[in-house]
Amino acid sequence: MRFGDSPINSEYMTATLDFVACHNMTYVRKYNLIKGLKAGGVFLLNTSWDLEHLSKNLPSEMKRYIAENNIRFYTIDAMKIAHETGMERRINTIMQVAFFKLAHVMPFDEAYEILKKDAQKYAKKSPTIVEQNLKAMALALNGLHEVIVPESWAETTENVIEAVTKETARKKYVFEIVNKTNAFEGDELSVQTLVDNGMTFGDEPLGTTASEKRGIALEVPEWNAQACIQCNECSFVCPHAAIRPFLVDEDEWNQAPEGFHVMDYKGSDGLKYRIQVSVEDCTGCGLCVEACPKKGEALKMIPYEGQEKESVNWAFAQTLKTKENPARPGTIVASQFEKPLFEFSGACSGCGETPYIKLLTQMFGDRMMISNATGCSAIYGGTQATPYTTNEQEQGPAWSNSLFEDNAEYGYGMWLASQTRRQKLAAEVLEALPEMSDDLQNLAKDWVEHLEDSEGTRARAEKMKGMLASEHFNSPKLDAIYKQKDQFVKPTQWIFGGDGWAYDIGFGGLDHIVASGADVNILVMDNEVYANTGGQVSKATPASAIAQFAAGGKSSTKKDLGAMLMTYGEVYVAQIASGANMMQTIRAFDEAEKFKGPSVIIAYTPCISHGLYGGILLALDEAKEAVNSGYWQLYRYNPLLEDLGKNPMILDFKKPDFGKVRDFLLTQSRFGNLLKVDAEHAENLYDKAAKDSRKRFMRYARLSGDLDKFLEREAKALAKKNADLGISTETNLKKERKTRPVDPEREARRAARKAERAAKK
Amino acid sequence: MRFGDSPINSEYMTATLDFVACHNMTYVRKYNLIKGLKAGGVFLLNTSWDLEHLSKNLPSEMKRYIAENNIRFYTIDAMKIAHETGMERRINTIMQVAFFKLAHVMPFDEAYEILKKDAQKYAKKSPTIVEQNLKAMALALNGLHEVIVPESWAETTENVIEAVTKETARKKYVFEIVNKTNAFEGDELSVQTLVDNGMTFGDEPLGTTASEKRGIALEVPEWNAQACIQCNECSFVCPHAAIRPFLVDEDEWNQAPEGFHVMDYKGSDGLKYRIQVSVEDCTGCGLCVEACPKKGEALKMIPYEGQEKESVNWAFAQTLKTKENPARPGTIVASQFEKPLFEFSGACSGCGETPYIKLLTQMFGDRMMISNATGCSAIYGGTQATPYTTNEQEQGPAWSNSLFEDNAEYGYGMWLASQTRRQKLAAEVLEALPEMSDDLQNLAKDWVEHLEDSEGTRARAEKMKGMLASEHFNSPKLDAIYKQKDQFVKPTQWIFGGDGWAYDIGFGGLDHIVASGADVNILVMDNEVYANTGGQVSKATPASAIAQFAAGGKSSTKKDLGAMLMTYGEVYVAQIASGANMMQTIRAFDEAEKFKGPSVIIAYTPCISHGLYGGILLALDEAKEAVNSGYWQLYRYNPLLEDLGKNPMILDFKKPDFGKVRDFLLTQSRFGNLLKVDAEHAENLYDKAAKDSRKRFMRYARLSGDLDKFLEREAKALAKKNADLGISTETNLKKERKTRPVDPEREARRAARKAERAAKK
Ligand code: SF4
Ligand code: SF4
Ligand code: SF4
Ligand code: SF4
Ligand code: SF4
Ligand code: SF4
Repeated sequence: MRFGDSPINSEYMTATLDFVACHNMTYVRKYNLIKGLKAGGVFLLNTSWDLEHLSKNLPSEMKRYIAENNIRFYTIDAMKIAHETGMERRINTIMQVAFFKLAHVMPFDEAYEILKKDAQKYAKKSPTIVEQNLKAMALALNGLHEVIVPESWAETTENVIEAVTKETARKKYVFEIVNKTNAFEGDELSVQTLVDNGMTFGDEPLGTTASEKRGIALEVPEWNAQACIQCNECSFVCPHAAIRPFLVDEDEWNQAPEGFHVMDYKGSDGLKYRIQVSVEDCTGCGLCVEACPKKGEALKMIPYEGQEKESVNWAFAQTLKTKENPARPGTIVASQFEKPLFEFSGACSGCGETPYIKLLTQMFGDRMMISNATGCSAIYGGTQATPYTTNEQEQGPAWSNSLFEDNAEYGYGMWLASQTRRQKLAAEVLEALPEMSDDLQNLAKDWVEHLEDSEGTRARAEKMKGMLASEHFNSPKLDAIYKQKDQFVKPTQWIFGGDGWAYDIGFGGLDHIVASGADVNILVMDNEVYANTGGQVSKATPASAIAQFAAGGKSSTKKDLGAMLMTYGEVYVAQIASGANMMQTIRAFDEAEKFKGPSVIIAYTPCISHGLYGGILLALDEAKEAVNSGYWQLYRYNPLLEDLGKNPMILDFKKPDFGKVRDFLLTQSRFGNLLKVDAEHAENLYDKAAKDSRKRFMRYARLSGDLDKFLEREAKALAKKNADLGISTETNLKKERKTRPVDPEREARRAARKAERAAKK
Repeated sequence: MRFGDSPINSEYMTATLDFVACHNMTYVRKYNLIKGLKAGGVFLLNTSWDLEHLSKNLPSEMKRYIAENNIRFYTIDAMKIAHETGMERRINTIMQVAFFKLAHVMPFDEAYEILKKDAQKYAKKSPTIVEQNLKAMALALNGLHEVIVPESWAETTENVIEAVTKETARKKYVFEIVNKTNAFEGDELSVQTLVDNGMTFGDEPLGTTASEKRGIALEVPEWNAQACIQCNECSFVCPHAAIRPFLVDEDEWNQAPEGFHVMDYKGSDGLKYRIQVSVEDCTGCGLCVEACPKKGEALKMIPYEGQEKESVNWAFAQTLKTKENPARPGTIVASQFEKPLFEFSGACSGCGETPYIKLLTQMFGDRMMISNATGCSAIYGGTQATPYTTNEQEQGPAWSNSLFEDNAEYGYGMWLASQTRRQKLAAEVLEALPEMSDDLQNLAKDWVEHLEDSEGTRARAEKMKGMLASEHFNSPKLDAIYKQKDQFVKPTQWIFGGDGWAYDIGFGGLDHIVASGADVNILVMDNEVYANTGGQVSKATPASAIAQFAAGGKSSTKKDLGAMLMTYGEVYVAQIASGANMMQTIRAFDEAEKFKGPSVIIAYTPCISHGLYGGILLALDEAKEAVNSGYWQLYRYNPLLEDLGKNPMILDFKKPDFGKVRDFLLTQSRFGNLLKVDAEHAENLYDKAAKDSRKRFMRYARLSGDLDKFLEREAKALAKKNADLGISTETNLKKERKTRPVDPEREARRAARKAERAAKK
């Protein structure tokens, strides 16, 4: 921030500073925080450390700088104050007071009055919040502590604290590229360094976020083996892959570090079970605790301080052998015993997109190819450090990002290329059959037959590889085939993006690729706004939401992308919300991947841009209420069912209560803030949003054959309401309905079949 | 065409020629045909003229050139031979024989054998056609006549035949620009000429095609007042606006040229009625005769020769006063008494697009703004001569064309600009109220109130203009308003394009504009292929059609653009086919224009690219059979009906016979040719096309509430079929259906209303 007597219009990085504050103390070891701080300037650190700890923990370079430049060094324990005043983890008011006290950008008393007045804005919501803020402000003033800098700091060289990342990083790349750019020193990289790191073709090594160990959580979850029921749901919801179940056998258990508590795994004898948190990768969002059925007992949030030892346990957990997945396939529990091949991305703490991507990599990561649209997922997916990683066999997703407007086409191109190569390979295999042993021949025929099948492809590929390993010397043809062993497994092509891409800018291409019939899988992470570029309205934005270019709340209806694409018939379409229904998400992913044509999955995505009044901690509730109120509909449209004579459309949640849409909206500032501006207008738009939701639901219900049931329930509810009001409503609706066949089309088909059978006799 | 001993790869215009043939004799007066013909070269002319006529009618420049350069000049009356041999108007075989006889590109006997063999290709279709061809070939050889060129031709200067266009053209522009470029001499235009013609801003004068008088028809329709029933359908279907009904009053009748036959107009006393053909603008497609309920009696095709006098009658018809439309509004008859503000375009003879555009200009042309996508309609709509024209008051469509990919956005921009200007004007009008007379005040208030209403806008605008004409001197405000009188009438924004634009390249934009809710009207002329750019497959191409990039017949389903857009709810969507149902077309246009939001009309468009085996003459049958077989569905989806508590979806043809889809397909080479290549594959695709049609129909029927009725009919038909086969099929389907309420949703609404009423008591 820059201050001056006349307006400052030009933008540039500040190089010399009067004041530096660090709100998160893990940064002291990661960044050269006070570089550029003027002699005599102020450095404010939020920490619980006393002088002894400061002396021990601060990097010596920092200590020297402070001592040599007469830096006025202050500390404050803002987390403690926040806890004491009931403000939980919100420290911004506290740090604000400290800033005005120390920075002298205006007379402090004046500033303090303004801040106090400002706190009254919460009065409408709750007087308690106002009180808490005022108390916190008072305590902040008291809690400011000036550090008497020991002269010894000037000469300190011993006790050099290495960057945390250094201890775990394995790759030159991490040292030379990732760490440098993370420390904002990327502009100092030489071309030779880029060349040395193989960056001339634009590719980067996988799994480099695992070396970052950002350690940004103020609080992290603590697991308690006594209370855990081994449901693995904490792991399922974690947006950052920072909490996972591990299975430990007897041998491994004997070598475990102290404090590596375990419990017997209830599914299988002889294995031990442990939930392990990577405290340095955790962002402290708290979602795991919210998801835990034993919240507060099996899992609870505690301060990061004191949990550092868990990083040793995490490191040990990484050395555990991969066990065969002991849980029933297709379950939540089973999904989480698989290593995520997407970890520790730089997405916002609590992001609703990353759990979807993480889960997909747990299901198919070893053979995924991903094309990613511009947007949040492109930034956290591939800028600098890479969250996509590999399993023990060095298999992992191939990921790339082209333009906003051509992502679907780009993914289609990836798919086409792979198709072409594998079909050529299949022809080569058939030609080489005579040169194979009988066993290999059978294997090879089976492989060609199942060339495009996902199920069992890994096993078939490994078997082929195994047998060819001994036979490939026998002939040049077999050798040529063996050289293409990376093509044995059927890849699965995914196309990722947000609603800005799928509903708007890239829609023309998405539509074209869906029409092409290509076997690609499209994941639309729908947070209903252009979050990454500043919150512009998209066609996925629902009525009544405030966004850029819709400052007065969007007045038009959310586009029904799924219904539009379903008109193609031969496309798998699903709408999911993992926070509301984890199993439906797993099912949809599985069905989409297996479907040999285009699949489109539209995923409800809680996002910081929604402005949950209760904080991102409530992201799972957001998803649940979205579904319960009918605001978001869960369905799967699977053309394969039609081939089986069934209705292709399945509604996965059939009891929406549209009366709750308004309540749902009012939990989020994107909707709720409108009420403060113009209540009547807001209520009209909320009403429209509820009506739009009902209309969409009816559209799906009509397709799934549930429309009658639904209308009947509505009529009943109305009758009951009237009855409660003392009005007798004579309606024979129920009787009428009873006599009707449920699905007229099915009835007709049945009659037609009967007639046909009769004809055959 | 160029011939050589080694392959000729480079493309260039030929400048020196050995052989020139003119198949259409009207060209002799329009182009400098034999420019570049070498001394001693051959000129072949298809004509019925003998030497006397040739001497009289050929341009003197041509005669001189022939005489001076020892051109060997041959004539042949190919039309006569075609008629005699039953080949109707197909002269290409005849001209081919003449070419090989005269051009000596290969030994004639050899060529003739090949041509005879080639004729056998029709054997499968009909042996008669083979015979006709062989006979025509023999007659062609006999019919070749070498003209003994009189020496006098070398000196001829008298009898200069002026270009036909010159006699009628009124504008500098036509002389200096249109005629030049039409004669392929556009590259000789100077920049100064362009500047002189006001072309620096890219705009051109309207109505210039009317000056072209291309005279390309070999046959034209002849009207017979004795048999005509005054239905105006000939005029409705004419793609070229070359046949129209005219109303003549007593005074006018007295001044009419001889041969201007009339009959009493049956709708109103004192008026006479005449169908007038513009023989020089007619393309000879024959559709008017096909459409005529008294085909062969009231209207029949006869040779152009001898009908030239009709151009005088046409010119006289242009001088007739515009009468108030005497027919019932909204009818076919009434529509055709309006002057088309789109005439004589350069579209292919018989084009299926232009009748839609023509009709729209008859309905709304005086206040239309049109944005046109790239494609046929952009070429015939605005290249060189302009078919869009004005009425007596100089009102006509404003037309423009941007890019293929942004047409919807471009039209949206036109609309926004006009909206902004008119809303500003409305504010000025309200502000100026105190300065108006009482009458004008009332008028002005009424005008502002109906600012966005189409109905009555012309009358309101004219009244405002009239009163302001006398009051505008009274105040600067009123004067400022009067200056904007071109904004008084509500314009109607149209966005035109083909399927390549709407389904493919421009779909993203179209979707975006529909979602915007703007009051624009989108006409998609769907000929199911990229006709203008060479016949590439589009997403509108149906299964089994052959196209570029789908040489083996398209295997995927036609995209359902209408169903996709209907999901927005607040959009008017219609599918029409004027050849099958003229009234439904008029209704859809009318409803779309009145709907105050986006409207999309998808129009079935017969096209030369469909390759009707019977010729473009059968375009109306094509449309009819498309609808009868269920291949093309007629519907109108009008959200306004929903507001009235009605079902918004109306199916306009409910008795499709999907068994006829195959017959329909086999009338066109785009489908039929597949059968010759691979019969089994073709049948499979035909089957798919029929199933796709049924699926679409069911989708619409489900929405319109007609599904049950339809399924019942299918089941009955099956039962009948079985019964005919002697199989007794016991089915109680019919009884079951009878007991069911027709529309469950309506029933529920009814019950709900009942309950509400009860509650109010
Ligand atoms: S607090 Fe958030 S980031 Fe940390 S482990 Fe739990 S869910 Fe993951
Ligand atoms: S969510 Fe809670 S109960 Fe379930 S595995 Fe995690 S810690 Fe255990
Ligand atoms: S802005 Fe929203 S979608 Fe983007 S990373 Fe943050 S939480 Fe995730
Ligand atoms: S023949 Fe064709 S162009 Fe000529 S008047 Fe009839 S419909 Fe029009
Ligand atoms: S279609 Fe035939 S009957 Fe009808 S107006 Fe034309 S000429 Fe007369
Ligand atoms: S190609 Fe087809 S649509 Fe285009 S002008 Fe010719 S007939 Fe009309």
